Amino acid sequence: MISPISAAVLVIGNEILTGRTQDVNLNYIAKKLMGAGIHLAEARIVRDIEADVVAAVNECRARYSYVFTTGGIGPTHDDITADCIAKAFGVSIGIHETARQILEKHYGDPAMLTEARLRMARIPATATLIDNPVSAAPGFRIGNVFVLAGVPSIMQAMFDGVLPNLQGGPPILSKTIGCYVPESLIADDLRKTAENFPDLDIGSYPYFRNGKHGTSLVFRGTKADEIDQALAAFSVAAVQRGFEFAEE
Amino acid sequence: MISPISAAVLVIGNEILTGRTQDVNLNYIAKKLMGAGIHLAEARIVRDIEADVVAAVNECRARYSYVFTTGGIGPTHDDITADCIAKAFGVSIGIHETARQILEKHYGDPAMLTEARLRMARIPATATLIDNPVSAAPGFRIGNVFVLAGVPSIMQAMFDGVLPNLQGGPPILSKTIGCYVPESLIADDLRKTAENFPDLDIGSYPYFRNGKHGTSLVFRGTKADEIDQALAAFSVAAVQRGFEFAEE
Repeated sequence: MISPISAAVLVIGNEILTGRTQDVNLNYIAKKLMGAGIHLAEARIVRDIEADVVAAVNECRARYSYVFTTGGIGPTHDDITADCIAKAFGVSIGIHETARQILEKHYGDPAMLTEARLRMARIPATATLIDNPVSAAPGFRIGNVFVLAGVPSIMQAMFDGVLPNLQGGPPILSKTIGCYVPESLIADDLRKTAENFPDLDIGSYPYFRNGKHGTSLVFRGTKADEIDQALAAFSVAAVQRGFEFAEE
Repeated sequence: MISPISAAVLVIGNEILTGRTQDVNLNYIAKKLMGAGIHLAEARIVRDIEADVVAAVNECRARYSYVFTTGGIGPTHDDITADCIAKAFGVSIGIHETARQILEKHYGDPAMLTEARLRMARIPATATLIDNPVSAAPGFRIGNVFVLAGVPSIMQAMFDGVLPNLQGGPPILSKTIGCYVPESLIADDLRKTAENFPDLDIGSYPYFRNGKHGTSLVFRGTKADEIDQALAAFSVAAVQRGFEFAEE
């Protein structure tokens, strides 16, 4: 475990599970959490079904430092996330006065705040709002759970707003080295390196590029010198075996 | 629930959770399962940590008709999937003679079958092999769990090979209609349509395109006439309100 501060992402929505939409939110959050010294320990993608969402929220919030949900906080019938979160925390849900005012201001005219739009002001009791600088309708935080929009531009703006307030660890650093050699020929040297540097997370990812088989090796940890030492140790072994290094 | 036959995908690998790699396997499997009448009910992305993988495998295989895992069956120290599956099923693991022969033939020379490569012939007891037409090293099936490679081209070839042997339901059909109107103005009509067609899964996905806010509406089910009726019912309401339809 590179960082003691952990997180889970919960992607809520049938559109990912039917293959209609390629999720990109997880990747965005994953990269940013690394920089904040928080390790993303798990992600789940669940349907728009109350029991599924409630169970996943409760399992993840008990297990990890932070949980980020994406999706399901819009105005339509399939937007059930806020209700699910209220149920998961055992709190009531109703119109949040500040959220209502934000929406009223956004739409300019109280008459434009239709019943459907007002649904987006329904917030579980005890939650605090998360600012939405893109399209006004807020997300919210309750306990260690952050409820964000599903539309990537909105999700990113919300996430960037909350990230500075999270308690992280030292940033998780990463260096990558590539060799034009099949993964299986690197395995022994890599295993030894991994054994000698137990605090590092060392990953090996095969690829086929420029007509050649190759492997990317990723060294990840919080101490730059340790990463450099592991990288050097592996490189010495690779040079001895005559491996060709590749651009990364 | 559109189909009684359900599935879960388990993506095993730190590279997705660190943001290094954007997963594309889930989307591929999701689309193909729809055509086979199998609904993908959940996906999880877990670390290369034995306890995490074992727990996720056991939860998902108990709950869903099929489980597909991707990743972690290569030759390096971080490839722990086969051992985790053996543990999850409570069976032993060892060199599978047919798998060994496949690898030996692939590498051409027994001397090339290094210890690291031989790791890829370790298969849990009672499992049957899944053909790998790309790079030889097989996947395997045990119970309702299908263990596939992580590299997309290999995963796809393995998955395409097993798909015809799965018991599915009627193909899940889908039609999409788009309107240049914000989701919130469609919500009421859509809710009514959803209530009138409870067997359909109707989703609503906002977008911003050509400088205009719009919403894609997806009608999904196994009966083409039901989808057409729901689409027509919504369209009549949309025309009455003067909504502008968009290309999809």
